[in-house]
This record gives sequence, structure tokens and C-alpha cells, in this order.
Amino acid sequence: MLLDEIKFDSKGLIPVIAQDVADNAVLMLAWANKDAIEETIQTGFGTYFSRSRSKLWRKGEESGNRQIVKEILLDCDGDALIYKVEQVGGIACHTGHRSCFYKTLRDGSWKENSEVIKSPEVMYANHR
Amino acid sequence: MLLDEIKFDSKGLIPVIAQDVADNAVLMLAWANKDAIEETIQTGFGTYFSRSRSKLWRKGEESGNRQIVKEILLDCDGDALIYKVEQVGGIACHTGHRSCFYKTLRDGSWKENSEVIKSPEVMYANHR
Repeated sequence: MLLDEIKFDSKGLIPVIAQDVADNAVLMLAWANKDAIEETIQTGFGTYFSRSRSKLWRKGEESGNRQIVKEILLDCDGDALIYKVEQVGGIACHTGHRSCFYKTLRDGSWKENSEVIKSPEVMYANHR
Repeated sequence: MLLDEIKFDSKGLIPVIAQDVADNAVLMLAWANKDAIEETIQTGFGTYFSRSRSKLWRKGEESGNRQIVKEILLDCDGDALIYKVEQVGGIACHTGHRSCFYKTLRDGSWKENSEVIKSPEVMYANHR
């Protein structure tokens, strides 16, 4: 079975890179367990395991910014995944940035490399 | 200090996505510790921590396929990095594929999505 080729860590998790299928931008890095991957395959929506909340995380359930998963990729040693996604709303990060990777190292410190598209207040208020 | 904003896991590691600066292709996911990040910043070459060998991993030291790091990005909660790299030799994976993510889920199984550019035998023989 396809899940047998996936090597989960000691906590039953695997890192997942969410990448925008349109331009290959990396949107976030999150974690999945077996259930999250199975749900992603079944529903077609990016599903993860939230380590802070210790439960299945249906990305976008609260913000509306779901991810439509177009492809799932596995790496050579089976311990990392990519979800290639269409990012609904164009925002992956809970801060309102498109990508969670909005800090770039420049001259010895982290500088924001992109704008907030929508404030978290607005983003989450709309979908409560 | 810039390293203070990085949240390492209980083993002192953080996942690092190596992404091709030319076209945003994700090349691999590896891990770094504090020393690896400092060496990457100082030398400009992608440096990781090998979990299997438990030591600093100067990517390309054996294969010649070094990574020239053009940018380092940090995510919103400080627990994942991106190295944006120029991949020397155009090959990141020890299998000889450009990217480690050369398996795509299709019709219930993992199918190779790209060719081997150079066989591992040739790749490693040239640099021993």
C-alpha cells in the first residue's frame, strides 16, 4: 500500500511542504500523520496534524483558506511529503501573509519579505 | 541575535527546505542544527546536520553537487527554514534525480516523475 512507503517519525508524523501549484512558491511546512494523509487523499483538501492542538487540522476550516491538493509527492527516503496545492484565498499563513516564510535573513536580521494580504482579525472573523 | 528567533526541536534540529532559486523547485528537505546554520551563513554553502550519521553535512562534499545559498527564509513560528539555492551540477538527490521529491502519487501508487540525470556510481566516483 502507498502509505507503507512513508516513514513516520517516532511520533507518527511526517513533515509536509505545501507548495503552490501555480508558481511553486513554498507556502508552509506542517506535519501529517497517517489519518491526515488518508483524509487528504480522500477529500482532496490539505489536511495536517496540529502538533500544538494534538488533533487533525483541516487547513482553512476556520479561515476559509482551504488548500485543494493537486498532487502529493514523496521524497527518496520516504520521510518528507509535498502537497502541491491551489491555495484558496491566496493566503496560507495565519498572519495573513501569502506564505508562512515571510522573513528573509538580511544584514544579520530577519526582514519581512512580503505584505500582509488580509489581517488575521478579518480573516478569521469572516469564517466564524 | 538572529539565531534566537529559531525554534529548534528537542534534538536541537530544525527542518530546512532546499529550494532552487531559479524556478522555485523544491529540491530536498533536510535538517540543520545551530552549527549547520552558522556555517551556512559564514560560508554561503548549504550545510545541514545528517541525522543518520549524526554529524555536520556539507552538502555536495562527496558528490560535488554543492548548494550556493542565495537566501535564507524563516517561517512565522520560527520552526522551519528555507535555503534558496543555486544547485551546482543541477542534482540535489543522492539517487541522481534533480530533486529528492521524484515520486508522485498516481492511481494509488508512487510513480517516478523525473529521470535520473546522473547515476550515483558516476556521481560519487568523480569526487572520491
